[in-house]
Amino acid sequence: MNTRSFPDWMAATQARTEAALSRHLPGADSIPARLHDAMRYATLGGGKRVRPLLAFAAGELSGATPEKLDIVASAVEMIHAYSLVHDDLPCMDDDVLRRGRPTCHVEYDEPTALLVGDSLQTLAFELLATQAIAEPVRQLEMIALLAHASGSRGMAGGQAIDLASVGKPLTQPELKLMHALKTGALIRAAVLLGALAGEPLSGDERNNLDRFAKRAGLLFQVVDDILDCTANTATLGKTVGKDEAADKPTYVSLLGLDAARTYAEELRGDALDALAIFGTRASRLTQLADYICHRQF
Amino acid sequence: MNTRSFPDWMAATQARTEAALSRHLPGADSIPARLHDAMRYATLGGGKRVRPLLAFAAGELSGATPEKLDIVASAVEMIHAYSLVHDDLPCMDDDVLRRGRPTCHVEYDEPTALLVGDSLQTLAFELLATQAIAEPVRQLEMIALLAHASGSRGMAGGQAIDLASVGKPLTQPELKLMHALKTGALIRAAVLLGALAGEPLSGDERNNLDRFAKRAGLLFQVVDDILDCTANTATLGKTVGKDEAADKPTYVSLLGLDAARTYAEELRGDALDALAIFGTRASRLTQLADYICHRQF
Repeated sequence: MNTRSFPDWMAATQARTEAALSRHLPGADSIPARLHDAMRYATLGGGKRVRPLLAFAAGELSGATPEKLDIVASAVEMIHAYSLVHDDLPCMDDDVLRRGRPTCHVEYDEPTALLVGDSLQTLAFELLATQAIAEPVRQLEMIALLAHASGSRGMAGGQAIDLASVGKPLTQPELKLMHALKTGALIRAAVLLGALAGEPLSGDERNNLDRFAKRAGLLFQVVDDILDCTANTATLGKTVGKDEAADKPTYVSLLGLDAARTYAEELRGDALDALAIFGTRASRLTQLADYICHRQF
Repeated sequence: MNTRSFPDWMAATQARTEAALSRHLPGADSIPARLHDAMRYATLGGGKRVRPLLAFAAGELSGATPEKLDIVASAVEMIHAYSLVHDDLPCMDDDVLRRGRPTCHVEYDEPTALLVGDSLQTLAFELLATQAIAEPVRQLEMIALLAHASGSRGMAGGQAIDLASVGKPLTQPELKLMHALKTGALIRAAVLLGALAGEPLSGDERNNLDRFAKRAGLLFQVVDDILDCTANTATLGKTVGKDEAADKPTYVSLLGLDAARTYAEELRGDALDALAIFGTRASRLTQLADYICHRQF
């Protein structure tokens, strides 16, 4: 796959992820049909698939097969999709637009959206436990890693800190911790799980990959904050300017727009440094870091 | 432990479960403290611990150690606790009282309760993936079983059918399917996981245990419906008569009170028949089936 142009690789990997998700989600006509239909609505048909792209790119470092990466990418994306559905609920961000379409609770109803999120989370772990992707002991490690990244000491914990921070000035270290949990933990997990689906890495390789993964997660968030301030709703497919309106701390509100852009470039440089040890095997991850840094939506 | 009286065994197992849950939940002062405090509030300090009791009793069939059963019981109870927190939310049952105390979203707030449920689910799978309770391949089987029992084709799916059934007449087979998913699947998982934490059972033993587990789940629900109609709020520690008020189908509304009681006795008889193959090893499960059938709250 490495001979393809980056845009071709990205498009093919996104399509592959869409197909894998569709295959592993319950059919829209299987009982309970409304719930299953809503799970498919919330997961399929859009999204940049950044986490699956990272998992597939990291899999190239360890020679993971596309079939195994399908599972890893699907599980991580289901966790991401569940978090979006719950974050959009009226009691959280109360958002009506996601990926250019009505959010799940608007299209269906609130109780259904609650169950959609709950069930997508469960299905992510069911997938990792039932599909043959590695030695059993390694699969347990992958489940543990994904669980830790998404629970109260990861993504959900970051969301809790975010809730508590509205209207409160945060320092840069506090903001960094919040984002390291809220967005960074799952992005890191996508990278590590992708690599774990192949041959074992050396300790040194794993440390460097982890360094890359942490920088990539932070980079993604800083750019997200920049776009929330500079892009428009139609381009982004979700409501923009909400963080500022909600008086939520962002890198832009903390550093200003120019310094936030400089910080993004620094993080990109750091991330790419960490990939040096892998040579050309890391070409997709390098391209992805560039994409994450320079994307317009 | 088999020489103790049933009430003593039950009290000791409940206390043991409480201690195990407390040990495996994040500390109330670890960041994010409010979320962790709320997770402990929602899980500790009450509850009949029916699923942990079933796991411990089933563990006696296969010689599982108490230390391993602590993990299984905690994981299953965390899934149960998460489901209660989400079921009590305003967009679902909108309940204010649980185990004689304010529900989680009343004591804390709605977004926190949402994250509490999400994080308890994650923690259940993290526990089963990180603690040494069986051969890795068996641990994967346990995770798969718990995930299937709690997802859209299990507990959450039953909840979705329940939502859709309000004000709609259900036949007895439809009601049975709903409860088999909503309550039965997790009770069945508690029994099977308890047994899986010990030495392997024969195929015949496993089939009979599964038959017991399914009957016990249904029995629990039929008795729950009877108590919702006959007990009072103070005794039950949760709001009673809500199913009838909400025009939700129950075994009592479908069969009448007397026939529901007769049906409970039949299920109890069936459940006990399935245990015959285990001889005296099943004495705790037998006592538990009696308790589930004849409990007053």
